[in-house]
Amino acid sequence: MKASSTDQERDKSILTAVDSCFDSEIEFLSEITAFASTRGNEQQVQKFVAAELNQRGFDVDTWCINVADISHLPGFSPVIGNYEEAINVVGTHRSRSNSGRSLILNGHIDVVPVGPLEMWTSPPFEPRIEDGWLYGRGAGDMKAGIASNLFALDALRSIGFQPAANVHFQSVVEEECTGNGALACLQRGYTADAALIPEPFSEALAEAQVGTLWFQVHLKGIPTHVAYSASGSNAIEAVIPLLAALHEMEDCWNVPDRRHSAFAKHDHALNLNVGKIKGGDWTSSVPAWCVFDVRMGIFPGQDIQEAQREIEAVLLDAARAHPFLRDNPPEIIYNGFLAAGYALCDDQSEIASQAVSALEAAYTATTGDTLQKTAITATTDARFFGLYADTPALVFGPEAEAIHGFDERVNIESIRRVTQTTALFIAEWCGLEAI
Amino acid sequence: MKASSTDQERDKSILTAVDSCFDSEIEFLSEITAFASTRGNEQQVQKFVAAELNQRGFDVDTWCINVADISHLPGFSPVIGNYEEAINVVGTHRSRSNSGRSLILNGHIDVVPVGPLEMWTSPPFEPRIEDGWLYGRGAGDMKAGIASNLFALDALRSIGFQPAANVHFQSVVEEECTGNGALACLQRGYTADAALIPEPFSEALAEAQVGTLWFQVHLKGIPTHVAYSASGSNAIEAVIPLLAALHEMEDCWNVPDRRHSAFAKHDHALNLNVGKIKGGDWTSSVPAWCVFDVRMGIFPGQDIQEAQREIEAVLLDAARAHPFLRDNPPEIIYNGFLAAGYALCDDQSEIASQAVSALEAAYTATTGDTLQKTAITATTDARFFGLYADTPALVFGPEAEAIHGFDERVNIESIRRVTQTTALFIAEWCGLEAI
Repeated sequence: MKASSTDQERDKSILTAVDSCFDSEIEFLSEITAFASTRGNEQQVQKFVAAELNQRGFDVDTWCINVADISHLPGFSPVIGNYEEAINVVGTHRSRSNSGRSLILNGHIDVVPVGPLEMWTSPPFEPRIEDGWLYGRGAGDMKAGIASNLFALDALRSIGFQPAANVHFQSVVEEECTGNGALACLQRGYTADAALIPEPFSEALAEAQVGTLWFQVHLKGIPTHVAYSASGSNAIEAVIPLLAALHEMEDCWNVPDRRHSAFAKHDHALNLNVGKIKGGDWTSSVPAWCVFDVRMGIFPGQDIQEAQREIEAVLLDAARAHPFLRDNPPEIIYNGFLAAGYALCDDQSEIASQAVSALEAAYTATTGDTLQKTAITATTDARFFGLYADTPALVFGPEAEAIHGFDERVNIESIRRVTQTTALFIAEWCGLEAI
Repeated sequence: MKASSTDQERDKSILTAVDSCFDSEIEFLSEITAFASTRGNEQQVQKFVAAELNQRGFDVDTWCINVADISHLPGFSPVIGNYEEAINVVGTHRSRSNSGRSLILNGHIDVVPVGPLEMWTSPPFEPRIEDGWLYGRGAGDMKAGIASNLFALDALRSIGFQPAANVHFQSVVEEECTGNGALACLQRGYTADAALIPEPFSEALAEAQVGTLWFQVHLKGIPTHVAYSASGSNAIEAVIPLLAALHEMEDCWNVPDRRHSAFAKHDHALNLNVGKIKGGDWTSSVPAWCVFDVRMGIFPGQDIQEAQREIEAVLLDAARAHPFLRDNPPEIIYNGFLAAGYALCDDQSEIASQAVSALEAAYTATTGDTLQKTAITATTDARFFGLYADTPALVFGPEAEAIHGFDERVNIESIRRVTQTTALFIAEWCGLEAI
């Protein structure tokens, strides 16, 4: 900025610049939301994002995740499928002066499946705007965040400035099932003084997030013709007592004594979800097999291996009470998240408190309000920066509704405020230099 | 037979003829068991069977089931998939004299899925013989019966005789899910004075069989991110109370007052089986949908439509107690069996009692034992002949184990006895004429 500008004038011009770019931002968001980038299908949108970064002069790095590079690292989660086309994109802005603090602007481009199409009001990958909301699978979780990261920098550029420190803009895959995309960025050497992840938590700063474990329970049965079903053992019905036992464990993990302090007032932060099930081959055969997929939350600080042992003990105990499973115990397979919880509020470092303060100031300058803090019951890639790279990670993004549901949508004015806050935060955190 | 032969001599030469052909019969059974003729995949084995019939001089009719031909007929069941390649084969022996009673020798060539391969001791479509049993999917249910039907006629031919009445040898599809294959034979004009179906019920005559209903229950949920699972409604977990309600209905249908007299001593003739389940798309999304497939038995005489109404009422009542299903009731789809029960023992006709007597005599002549009668808790194609064509249908076949299960097997000596009994039954029922 010109030396003669006051901070207020600087802020005002940045806010105005975001406004000026905002139509383009929403157009960009619509464009990337139209890509059906469910896990394994992100190549086209990543190509699109890389081209946008190239156009803007970023130093663009596009690569396919190599499991062998990351499988030994803390935070790695078991791979589902393969990574033959698991493409990460990082665009790096290199500062001339390097006078400020460096920053990672992270977002994930993978989206969760849409479920039955007939339950959507309009097709999930044909984004539309209605009453101030942009609808589409992934619009909120979290393509709006990716747009915000990119257009915060665009806005600065539109008034002649760029960050006075290196900034890594990251568009990663695998956030929705393992986090191995963000981990691969770390392993590739992308580090910075802070990270910002605009996940859609309604313009509140996530000061803590739960961890997530995914596991599959494989059950066998004794198949027979249904005519003799008493002599068989139904693998589908065997799910019921195991699920009941898991819910008892869920209740137990949520008792006040076991809560992380950031979740003290949260009666049920750790949710157990049976998200998928499949079993049996023939209606008139007692089913020989059933598999169900479970997600369970854990608190920051809760040991993953201990949690796994507890889950296994609960399932095997329940199996012992079952006439067939007693001798044919369920097989438990971890495929996907083995993700620790993360609490930014536990990070007592100077740099963490500086990062939080900078975001608070930027938010107040944008909205006139105080930045709210929240403890979230979901997992984000923030843990990689916070736990494994000593980097405070700020999860702060727009308001969205029905993420993972039907008619997922993101609030457009909220995107504007987040983009403005982000642009001001970059200006404060990195400093600015003339282009 | 020669006029001078006594009945005993005739019987003895027939029994010996079956013995002489028996190695070929088991070889034929192995050959047809090696075809993986699960529903929709019967074309190759049907071609093989048709060729065998042609070779023997039968008048062979091979056709694809046309739904429009049969969908208006009593006994028709809703189609699963399509019948583009649903091939029936009927080989007709035409008698010169037509001095005896005509006969249908019926069997189904379709087999149920094998389930997880690793649970079989040896591959299900690589039949093997061990300790007097022939192993393989479909070996018992009911390719051994098809072999028996064919080789009973072969044995007669090998000593210079053929039935003195028309005999329709039927190899049908669709028995395991609708019975529409047998129905299509009826519609095509194949009728006779009696029918024999060698389903594997341990050499006992089925004097009654239950009916079967298949239905799918489609449940919706409210998908959300698992972080907010309390605001969602889990379609997989919603199965549990509905299934409990169905089991209560099952208990109620089995009370002594509701039983058909042939099942009076059968404490649990009507089995409810959840045979398949599928739901959800993503482990961390509260699942928006779940579908489970149910088989429920009904007694002979139990009205199908009334049973359907009762099932629907039970499901809708249970749904009313569920916070989400209350306003989003399950959808119930009938796909597959809407099969009535059938009781041969209720058939007071002269021809029925003649048919039973002839089979009893043939069995005693073969084994020295009295033919046992049984009420079976499974459904067979017998109902089409008995209920819709006024034709007594004798279900009598070999001993098999683990039908619909792993390591399905059929007892080889039992096949021999059934084939001998069948040959003697044909001689008595149809009479014999020289080739």
